[in-house]
Amino acid sequence: MTLTELVEQIKAKQSFLCVGLDSDLQKIPAHLHREKEPLFAFNKAIIDATADCAVAYKPNTAFYEAAGEAGWMQLRKTAEYIRTRYPHMFLIADAKRGDIGNTSNGYAKAFFSVMDMDAVTLSPYMGRDTVQPFLEYDGKWVVLLALTSNTSAADFELMEEAGTGKKLYEKVIETSKAWGSEANMMYVAGATKAGMLQGIRKIIPHHFLLVPGIGAQGGSLSDVMQHGMNKNGGLLVNASRAIIYASSGKDFAAAAEKEAKKIQREMESGLSEHGH
Amino acid sequence: MTLTELVEQIKAKQSFLCVGLDSDLQKIPAHLHREKEPLFAFNKAIIDATADCAVAYKPNTAFYEAAGEAGWMQLRKTAEYIRTRYPHMFLIADAKRGDIGNTSNGYAKAFFSVMDMDAVTLSPYMGRDTVQPFLEYDGKWVVLLALTSNTSAADFELMEEAGTGKKLYEKVIETSKAWGSEANMMYVAGATKAGMLQGIRKIIPHHFLLVPGIGAQGGSLSDVMQHGMNKNGGLLVNASRAIIYASSGKDFAAAAEKEAKKIQREMESGLSEHGH
Repeated sequence: MTLTELVEQIKAKQSFLCVGLDSDLQKIPAHLHREKEPLFAFNKAIIDATADCAVAYKPNTAFYEAAGEAGWMQLRKTAEYIRTRYPHMFLIADAKRGDIGNTSNGYAKAFFSVMDMDAVTLSPYMGRDTVQPFLEYDGKWVVLLALTSNTSAADFELMEEAGTGKKLYEKVIETSKAWGSEANMMYVAGATKAGMLQGIRKIIPHHFLLVPGIGAQGGSLSDVMQHGMNKNGGLLVNASRAIIYASSGKDFAAAAEKEAKKIQREMESGLSEHGH
Repeated sequence: MTLTELVEQIKAKQSFLCVGLDSDLQKIPAHLHREKEPLFAFNKAIIDATADCAVAYKPNTAFYEAAGEAGWMQLRKTAEYIRTRYPHMFLIADAKRGDIGNTSNGYAKAFFSVMDMDAVTLSPYMGRDTVQPFLEYDGKWVVLLALTSNTSAADFELMEEAGTGKKLYEKVIETSKAWGSEANMMYVAGATKAGMLQGIRKIIPHHFLLVPGIGAQGGSLSDVMQHGMNKNGGLLVNASRAIIYASSGKDFAAAAEKEAKKIQREMESGLSEHGH
């Protein structure tokens, strides 16, 4: 998906919601375990219920790998289902991979050729070699970890550089923005650190940010919109557990729809407030 | 596998060779493509040919993911094959995963329960949350990226901290060594930066180091032994392409054996020189 198409989708749906498909065999409703492919059955129901309110889906590969090769197959089927039924969705493999060039090629093939994802999340630790092979795919995106929403993000991401006073996550953004463009790179910036979004916007005013951490992790959507929005909207805000596990009963899809709709409405007023 | 068992294996085999199973459908000998499971067939032949000279195997997950769920299945079968036929091998999933606690649990389950690997490589970027779930498995190991062997390792790993002058990779090692012990944590330290191994040994004299980068990437085994060895040996040195692609013909397994034997002999004299 191109940048223009993504911006159009956000305007059309008045939403920049990304639904995180953290679909865990231990947490999905009990009755789905009778299905042959319980993760895929769960995902289909969640997707059908939330597709009107969302512009992106983000399956996290960990939950599928935990189910072995059957899980990997259900991840591929989920991607195919979205591609076929909802062709205008932005599809992110939340894989947080990071390896050297030779090996990164393999991951790029896995997510962009074997599965037709639009984007993959990557870790910047090993530098440019990790990112480059992914940028060679036309119309595909890299979402680079910068400032994450977890507690121990402070262990290394906030390390301050001698001489410049830059934090590691700032250096990651400043260095890597030259590797691609605002049309093929985004950055992960956690909602639990919304105050820092202003600083990030000074370095990359035009890039999209993928923002996790609202809902279960406690970040505030209105803070994120206040500090993170730009002329394109410029945000994909992810919610996972708050939507997909809104109910653990047979009404899980309806409950997910209700939660997604609630978030979409808040996004709609934020977009309108900021002139979109 | 415990630390004691690993040290015993190294003494018994007079080798600390780790064979990297970077098994790429595009690079394995052409005649294997007639097999139903070409990656698994390739791996079995490589393993049988090198098991006498090696103490560890390290499949890199990227190459298996690039072959879709069939690849993922062949990775699991490779792990099972090693577990069954060569129970004293140290088995490393080179996955370089890194995510928050909730999600890291999924990866830990994938590699330690679904597959019975001994160790997983992890990226430190997101801090302790990434590592902790893996350390809760008894007898299992985390191999944390510190100083990698690729060209762009310098982008961020060598960033210097204000006040302390420590490099990021040094801070990663210093901070994380308190999360586990020398009996459940190792560090990746690239052979292409062998001069820095001395500095690493000052921070962690007793931990094992997993050293990639000899062979195809140009690092020198004798430099690594000189700067990196400790009282336990303390090294696992990985070679991938130099061994597994030593020949692209039908004699690939014999050629791999010859290469592995050559490296093992050099290791044997290094071990004896250092009194092991």
